[in-house]
Amino acid sequence: MAEQETAVDTAEEDDTELDRHRGDAILEAVEIADRDALTALLEPLHAADIADFLEQISAGERRRLITLWGDGIDGEILSELDENLREEVIATLDPSVLAEAVRELESDDVVDLIEDLDQPQRFAILEALEKADRVAVEQSLSFPEESAGRLMQPNVVRAPEHWTVGDAIDYLRAARELPDQFYHIILVDPRMHPTGYVTLGKLLGTARRTRLLEITEESFRTISVTTPEEEVAYMFNQYHLISAPVVDDEDRLVGVITIDDAMLVLDAEAGEDMMLLAGVGDESVSDRTLKIARQRFPWLMVNLMTAILASLVIAQFEAAITQIVALAVLMPIVASMGGNAGTQSLTVAVRALATRDLTGSNALRVVRREATAGLLNGAAFAGIMAVVGIVWFGLPMLGVVIAAAMVLNLVVAALAGVLIPLGLEKIGVDPALASGAFVTTVTDVTGFFAFLGLAVMLLL
Amino acid sequence: MAEQETAVDTAEEDDTELDRHRGDAILEAVEIADRDALTALLEPLHAADIADFLEQISAGERRRLITLWGDGIDGEILSELDENLREEVIATLDPSVLAEAVRELESDDVVDLIEDLDQPQRFAILEALEKADRVAVEQSLSFPEESAGRLMQPNVVRAPEHWTVGDAIDYLRAARELPDQFYHIILVDPRMHPTGYVTLGKLLGTARRTRLLEITEESFRTISVTTPEEEVAYMFNQYHLISAPVVDDEDRLVGVITIDDAMLVLDAEAGEDMMLLAGVGDESVSDRTLKIARQRFPWLMVNLMTAILASLVIAQFEAAITQIVALAVLMPIVASMGGNAGTQSLTVAVRALATRDLTGSNALRVVRREATAGLLNGAAFAGIMAVVGIVWFGLPMLGVVIAAAMVLNLVVAALAGVLIPLGLEKIGVDPALASGAFVTTVTDVTGFFAFLGLAVMLLL
Repeated sequence: MAEQETAVDTAEEDDTELDRHRGDAILEAVEIADRDALTALLEPLHAADIADFLEQISAGERRRLITLWGDGIDGEILSELDENLREEVIATLDPSVLAEAVRELESDDVVDLIEDLDQPQRFAILEALEKADRVAVEQSLSFPEESAGRLMQPNVVRAPEHWTVGDAIDYLRAARELPDQFYHIILVDPRMHPTGYVTLGKLLGTARRTRLLEITEESFRTISVTTPEEEVAYMFNQYHLISAPVVDDEDRLVGVITIDDAMLVLDAEAGEDMMLLAGVGDESVSDRTLKIARQRFPWLMVNLMTAILASLVIAQFEAAITQIVALAVLMPIVASMGGNAGTQSLTVAVRALATRDLTGSNALRVVRREATAGLLNGAAFAGIMAVVGIVWFGLPMLGVVIAAAMVLNLVVAALAGVLIPLGLEKIGVDPALASGAFVTTVTDVTGFFAFLGLAVMLLL
Repeated sequence: MAEQETAVDTAEEDDTELDRHRGDAILEAVEIADRDALTALLEPLHAADIADFLEQISAGERRRLITLWGDGIDGEILSELDENLREEVIATLDPSVLAEAVRELESDDVVDLIEDLDQPQRFAILEALEKADRVAVEQSLSFPEESAGRLMQPNVVRAPEHWTVGDAIDYLRAARELPDQFYHIILVDPRMHPTGYVTLGKLLGTARRTRLLEITEESFRTISVTTPEEEVAYMFNQYHLISAPVVDDEDRLVGVITIDDAMLVLDAEAGEDMMLLAGVGDESVSDRTLKIARQRFPWLMVNLMTAILASLVIAQFEAAITQIVALAVLMPIVASMGGNAGTQSLTVAVRALATRDLTGSNALRVVRREATAGLLNGAAFAGIMAVVGIVWFGLPMLGVVIAAAMVLNLVVAALAGVLIPLGLEKIGVDPALASGAFVTTVTDVTGFFAFLGLAVMLLL
């Protein structure tokens, strides 16, 4: 297995690549129930690719594949699976296969695996673990969801501050079981407070008699068990951390978080913001139709309310529309341009808040800049639309009306796009959530009201 | 400095935290030109936080701060700066300070620093480097932009395949200069082809006589110098890599990419997709107003075209609107609901394409699922709108018209939302780019045409 994997190369026809061709072959092997062929096709793949494949096929194919492959499903594949599918797959698995699968995982992966399962499944998995692992997992689960405590690995390589490089190397050579992945030795004082860390590279490249304290890294930062995972991901990304010690509320070392876990969180958070902005919740392509329709419904309902609000504004101007039907033809343009400009500002603001580029100290400057940019583009499109209005309908005054409404709506759009997420952030709500609905409500209402209102004043 | 940093803790009042209070103090020190106070405030901060602060203040404040602080600006701060600001800051710096700043950087950071600078600035920095570094940087710059060759660090720790653990440890102890950060020793065959790698943790925990080949990692994968950085980030995230060897087109080891660089790319890519979806280019909060207005203009122009197209559809039904003004009042609701539903499907599809959860093998299933979900929500909102239409305007047939138009538009929206990005991906265009404009054009035109067309057929 290891042999096979080390020979891997990204060039040309790759034995470990999951492409369409292999996908079809796998499904065919499942179809004709050829277990040997299935195993030969799946074995060389990375667990993450197998999990992706399971997510992409239909529920029926999945069930047949898992039943046929049997004990091929290991803990790694389970941890790579989308959480929406895990319950289904775990329910399909033979209990002995499941027990075997989870026993080979590190405790932080087990935590990630079971935290979203329902009680009986969770219990079955905990039962299958060895005592020490079970205790570690249960301790981790005692921390809030999406906190550093859930992400960390309690198995930490640490050393007293007074040790030398030689002491540390001898200790590591003698250690019976080291974590699968570790990149630092964490120094602790006698009360178990972490005070610095040394990279393994430095340890290997420094004379044995050197004291560890002399070669600690500047990047050292500790994370509290209760820190939200979003904040953890931010710290890893901002400070280029590779691993960071986690401390309890008395500042004692209780675990370590490594960058691969932080990267997964960062990726998930970015996806979440994008989805929230579009009014989609925690959705995945493997979700069932009904679930998806149900999850999107509330957001569409919110949109319906705001659309009706906009229609109520239009209804106030029914008389004007009957007299000049051009108003009905042109009014969606003003609203649509406002909605688009608002979404531009909104997206920039939400992203900047997430990456902490938009803070208290530059908020005012950004708001001013957005308003000015809105004014500039508003003026440009006002000019264009004035010409369109005059040429199309031959009414110069209509050109004036649509131009004025355009400027107004684009400025309002820019302001709403940045002020609404700033306001939501201030009151502690995710700025991506529902911002879109607020912004388009503002731009629709402003657009219709300004255009139709000015038309009544200037045209009738 | 190291002492100070290792004492850092996230708890309570933190000496290294950049908060509003410290920000104000820094600006005050700049105001009164108190260099000592400024240095005392900035020194304890991480380079990334200093760069963020520079991005958040105004251009004038920035210039004064840099002039006052002088040689405080180091290479790390320059690499952390947003590329839009780098040119400005570098132009402000004293040439000797700049030369000093870049000499302390690793060559991959120098590449990242200078690749977007214009020729004279780039030349000045290259001149300041030591010969070996300059050669490494120039070689890196010979690879395509946004490729693995640009991301990699050419300084690689490698070992012949036949070495034992003891050989490797002795080699590392004797090595004169090891990279700042490295996590693996890469095994190469006599022709310099990488064949596996060993983590430093394993190296430290294994008996000296063990052969390196026996303790290589399963996760080993090589990356070609020409691989796009987006693909590199995907591989690190998908396969939980910490570092990966980079090979040239003859499969020889030429460098190594580490996860911290991949994480930055992953973060940037996610932000980019979100921005593209909203019709915003490569924009940052530190950009100037004019640049922003100019960058957003083309997208708004595209939107204007599509809005005019929708208006042309409405114009075909002027007679109907004059007869039943309720049509003008209700028509934006159908269009708006379609736009929203389309954006939901679109966002899910774009994200799933980026994370490779949507592929050739499940595209058909996802399209079918979207259409069905669109039909379900379409039916639900058709019912609601039929009631609204009847109650509001007392016209049962109007209720039927809006209901039918709603079902139709929500199904079309769902289909457009997934088929358009899939189509763009197929022809090699970024599926996030311009998808939004296409989708809302489809839903606006369908919405207005279906609603007004059915009204003419059934109501007049």
